Amino acid sequence: MSSQKDIDILVSEVGPRDGLQSIKQTMPTDMKKMWISALSEAGVREIEVGSFVPPKLLPQMADCADLVQHALTLENVFVTALVPNLRGAESAFKSGVQKITIPVSVSEPHSLSNVRKTHEQMYSEVASIIALRNEQYPNVLVEAGLSTVFGCTIQGVVTEQESLFMANKMAALGVDEVGLADTVGYATPLQVKSLFKQLKIELGNIAGSAHFHNTRGQGLANVLAAYEVGVTTFDASQGGIGGCPYAPGASGNIVTEDLVFLLESMGLRTGIDIEKLVAAREWLKKALPNEPLYGFIPDAGVGKAFKYAKDM
Amino acid sequence: MSSQKDIDILVSEVGPRDGLQSIKQTMPTDMKKMWISALSEAGVREIEVGSFVPPKLLPQMADCADLVQHALTLENVFVTALVPNLRGAESAFKSGVQKITIPVSVSEPHSLSNVRKTHEQMYSEVASIIALRNEQYPNVLVEAGLSTVFGCTIQGVVTEQESLFMANKMAALGVDEVGLADTVGYATPLQVKSLFKQLKIELGNIAGSAHFHNTRGQGLANVLAAYEVGVTTFDASQGGIGGCPYAPGASGNIVTEDLVFLLESMGLRTGIDIEKLVAAREWLKKALPNEPLYGFIPDAGVGKAFKYAKDM
Repeated sequence: MSSQKDIDILVSEVGPRDGLQSIKQTMPTDMKKMWISALSEAGVREIEVGSFVPPKLLPQMADCADLVQHALTLENVFVTALVPNLRGAESAFKSGVQKITIPVSVSEPHSLSNVRKTHEQMYSEVASIIALRNEQYPNVLVEAGLSTVFGCTIQGVVTEQESLFMANKMAALGVDEVGLADTVGYATPLQVKSLFKQLKIELGNIAGSAHFHNTRGQGLANVLAAYEVGVTTFDASQGGIGGCPYAPGASGNIVTEDLVFLLESMGLRTGIDIEKLVAAREWLKKALPNEPLYGFIPDAGVGKAFKYAKDM
Repeated sequence: MSSQKDIDILVSEVGPRDGLQSIKQTMPTDMKKMWISALSEAGVREIEVGSFVPPKLLPQMADCADLVQHALTLENVFVTALVPNLRGAESAFKSGVQKITIPVSVSEPHSLSNVRKTHEQMYSEVASIIALRNEQYPNVLVEAGLSTVFGCTIQGVVTEQESLFMANKMAALGVDEVGLADTVGYATPLQVKSLFKQLKIELGNIAGSAHFHNTRGQGLANVLAAYEVGVTTFDASQGGIGGCPYAPGASGNIVTEDLVFLLESMGLRTGIDIEKLVAAREWLKKALPNEPLYGFIPDAGVGKAFKYAKDM
């Protein structure tokens, strides 16, 4: 949700949240700050710096408010955080964050196992968050990130109808954006095209970002499919960190480095310098030396024929 | 080049050639046969079993004629091999192979460094091979596999004009198919769409397969792009074996397992059973225990929402 007009696609870095919350080890706050600064220096325009959840549940995310403060000092970075409930939203709003994302499972069994809430309970949570935002923090954006829209490890198939029902429900409750997340890496290009196309038809400008995992290696093919039906914001995680509990050895989020190469090579300006982005990985390597990092561009380089979109 | 009508996309397994020729260790012939049989049992319809080159140059490929003989005994497998020159073609034709692929570099510096031939020398080599085929082996198909069409590590940018000139030249010399190969992993979806679209316009039914490497992680996105402009034959390598000399740690060919998942999930019948395909990896693990195998599907599985195209 960057306001800059000098980019075609917004790459939203979710590594500090989706990546680090899946890793047992806690990255020291100072290291996180250096990493976030390095991402910003590489030209990343939106960073999800953490998650406002009880430190008892996710100690890796305990410094979220501190990171929001830090990120707000950086130029050209839109600062976002994840919040699962009203209590998290209160802390997030107080921290000065510019946008919050509320994860909402379309699969009810997944919702129950993930946040212990039925759909009805989730609707009332979102309504309370929106009410608080409208009353006291009118400038903060609220996104609903619909999870399991392409399938669920518990429910199995999730229908397009179910996802669109939830998307419309969220729009009716007053969220500013509805993004779609392939939580467990089930998405395929045909599904992606069909669902994002329909989302745009039903929600118009409220239709939001794509959040893909690379669990089955289909991540960038799904990005291409989503781009072809008009999606312009993509979540990604540097080094693909975070893994996936359902697929040992398989990477989690799509890799920011490879995503930026794809987009720039297609003539789409991201504002990101790939060399500097690859350099930012060093902070991850320093802080989490045992954590595998994914991605091809950091090893292969951009190659002799590569040109940035702005130079085409 | 399978004649079966029960598949929508032909997946051509090139691991026994492109994969194994890049690995220093030689896979024992018996193991290769077991692997090729397992691939066939999984439903793979075309296998490039090796390369007809001097054993001194590539001892890993010395058993190519033997492998052709073996593969010809398998049901539903179209048996192909790579040949760099007339001498290789003679051996290939004698072996009983059903199709040969001649690699032809569009980048002349690459051609000189790879096969020590100028373009003119290559034209005359192809002409001699076609003449021999026409005279003595009229049933064997000849494909020109144009390499470096999406860029070259020596020349840098390779223009569409250069590639199409070479494609037309090969068609004029009488080859049956012209495939396009992203030898060094430079291809991007826009390039892929543009070049394959143009190839089809200029060559019609002689326009052939796509051979992508995953050096920069863009392999499946390129497959999707090529499919969208009508390409129906894709090369791939089980486990992505072969690596890439230009990118340590980066995989070589696109991974057959992940490719088949992509295609089947899009409703495209490949004839391949993914479980059996993954099982075929065991022969590679046994024969080459130190060689890294790539791909996500073998770790992640197909997931609870997956359906084969034929069951959709």
